[in-house]
Amino acid sequence: MNALPDHDTFELGNFKLQSGRTLAKGKLAYKTYGTLNSRRDNAIVYPTFYSGKHTDNEPLIGDGLALDPQKYFIIVPNMFGNGVSSSPSNTPTPLNKAGFPNITLYDNIMAHHRLVTEKFGIERIELVCGFSMGAQQTFHWGALFPDMVARIMPWCGSAKTSRHNFVFLEGGRAALTADAAWKDGRYDAQPAKGLRAFARVYAGWGPSQAFYREEVYRKALGFETIEDYIVGAWEERFLEFDANDLMAMLWSWQNADISANPLYNGDFHKALGAIKARAIVMPSETDQYFPVADNAIEVGHMPNAELLPLPTIWGHLGGGPGRNPDDTAFINRALKQLLLVN
Amino acid sequence: MNALPDHDTFELGNFKLQSGRTLAKGKLAYKTYGTLNSRRDNAIVYPTFYSGKHTDNEPLIGDGLALDPQKYFIIVPNMFGNGVSSSPSNTPTPLNKAGFPNITLYDNIMAHHRLVTEKFGIERIELVCGFSMGAQQTFHWGALFPDMVARIMPWCGSAKTSRHNFVFLEGGRAALTADAAWKDGRYDAQPAKGLRAFARVYAGWGPSQAFYREEVYRKALGFETIEDYIVGAWEERFLEFDANDLMAMLWSWQNADISANPLYNGDFHKALGAIKARAIVMPSETDQYFPVADNAIEVGHMPNAELLPLPTIWGHLGGGPGRNPDDTAFINRALKQLLLVN
Repeated sequence: MNALPDHDTFELGNFKLQSGRTLAKGKLAYKTYGTLNSRRDNAIVYPTFYSGKHTDNEPLIGDGLALDPQKYFIIVPNMFGNGVSSSPSNTPTPLNKAGFPNITLYDNIMAHHRLVTEKFGIERIELVCGFSMGAQQTFHWGALFPDMVARIMPWCGSAKTSRHNFVFLEGGRAALTADAAWKDGRYDAQPAKGLRAFARVYAGWGPSQAFYREEVYRKALGFETIEDYIVGAWEERFLEFDANDLMAMLWSWQNADISANPLYNGDFHKALGAIKARAIVMPSETDQYFPVADNAIEVGHMPNAELLPLPTIWGHLGGGPGRNPDDTAFINRALKQLLLVN
Repeated sequence: MNALPDHDTFELGNFKLQSGRTLAKGKLAYKTYGTLNSRRDNAIVYPTFYSGKHTDNEPLIGDGLALDPQKYFIIVPNMFGNGVSSSPSNTPTPLNKAGFPNITLYDNIMAHHRLVTEKFGIERIELVCGFSMGAQQTFHWGALFPDMVARIMPWCGSAKTSRHNFVFLEGGRAALTADAAWKDGRYDAQPAKGLRAFARVYAGWGPSQAFYREEVYRKALGFETIEDYIVGAWEERFLEFDANDLMAMLWSWQNADISANPLYNGDFHKALGAIKARAIVMPSETDQYFPVADNAIEVGHMPNAELLPLPTIWGHLGGGPGRNPDDTAFINRALKQLLLVN
């Protein structure tokens, strides 16, 4: 049923969610790279991003790279809703499709924590890192388990989804659900027109103004025209997804907030201040929805953090693992630098 | 039939379009303010913006303002497709609805030129100015009739729609047309769900990140929540429009290019270089789709132009006439300054 044969699954059982609902037979799919050492102190947690699977994180994992499986035990947990971990598309009735519960990033991190502690007996994590919603999960790890995480490096993501980011996502959601075939999530066939509209909206946000101005889609990606690029890079990507899965992750994104939990009761500055981990926070200089300014404010409230913008015209996309050599190398160097700090 | 009683109409007859098609009984609706002097040398042309009508331009017209009807004869031509000049919603069969022809900004300016010369006998225009698509029409005036226009001030608009801007609009179009009620433009009732989706997409683009971060929608506009703002300021605005009219103007916008005509044959730099008018080009510092960078490039190819960014966190919206007192005052001062130059 699942096309990806190369991952493990941690059974969460009846997993209680922040909403009060229970995810029956919850499944956290993950993949590990490298070997946990005998002291169990070489673990790295590297969560996935929106529309990403564990395989999409792999370009930054490898011998000689910062995330080196020869040295570290790297755990990549799949985000709920991504079609590999519990998602609307793979959960039995009645929690499938539109019946799938809202899941927060807090819920995701609680599941990660169970995996890390119950399955692997890890008490201290060397590094949590991730791109985009993976960055948001990284911030969550730092705030929710401040004594457990030595270092964090979130790139192209924020500790709390900004209002503007929320509205950008709202536009995508409205586009997808304008398709009558969406049927409030109770469709039999995928709402293809809505998925295409979602992709087309996203195509304006993901790259930067300069990405289009400089014709990066043509020069670096080989798409002859903008229309080719929108169809080939955006529509085709999102048409591979289940619409309910996309909307489930979108909800998680819109509601991401490291302080939206009993530990901080909405006190965002307190939550940022509680992150003890040594941190490099890396926005893309040209990101349209996770702009530098939001991270700069966050870093200002973190006791042990450095702001290190990614110099790129690829916009948000620049942070995507392996998207382009220069940006990937920059991210890798920063990860290496951070891992050297004692 | 038309709710606005306060404008005149210039009959264009069988108006030949750039596409080769003919707009039968073409109508250019316009309003004038002030009196044309005997030398016919005190005219200002001030075209409308996307989703705007002549009345929406009025906050910058008034006694003591730069655009002073005591001194100038101000002509505000309504853009084709805006529901006042010839538009899908007001043109007889078979050119109504989806049968309406594509109209370029070049076509718009040719119609303005006929109005200005045939109706008023004006040979020299003191100033052409406008916001957004009005700015794009302003650039067109400068390039298409360089010997006729003394000054131009385009704000929050470009001489050519950038690729990124094109893609942003493509997202809005996909959202609107994902609604089955759109029926390829052959609807009887307006596609309300599609119009709402279009509005929701637009809500992410029109203001800036900082506009939302600083809660300007609440502090300055009185909307308690983001949802209130999206519904009250965006959905309600676009639900007043005919969907075909919006899509007709969107096509004009996507294809705006001062060099896409026999004068310049696509040589954009040549067209910019031909603009003799003394120019102030004013991008909003926080505009997401008409960014400063695009105007800076354009000004670099104009022989007589100054780049003067509008310092605002209102994003593109900051340029909207009367949207907020500070930005409107800044625009007014620049217009005054430009009109003083001999």
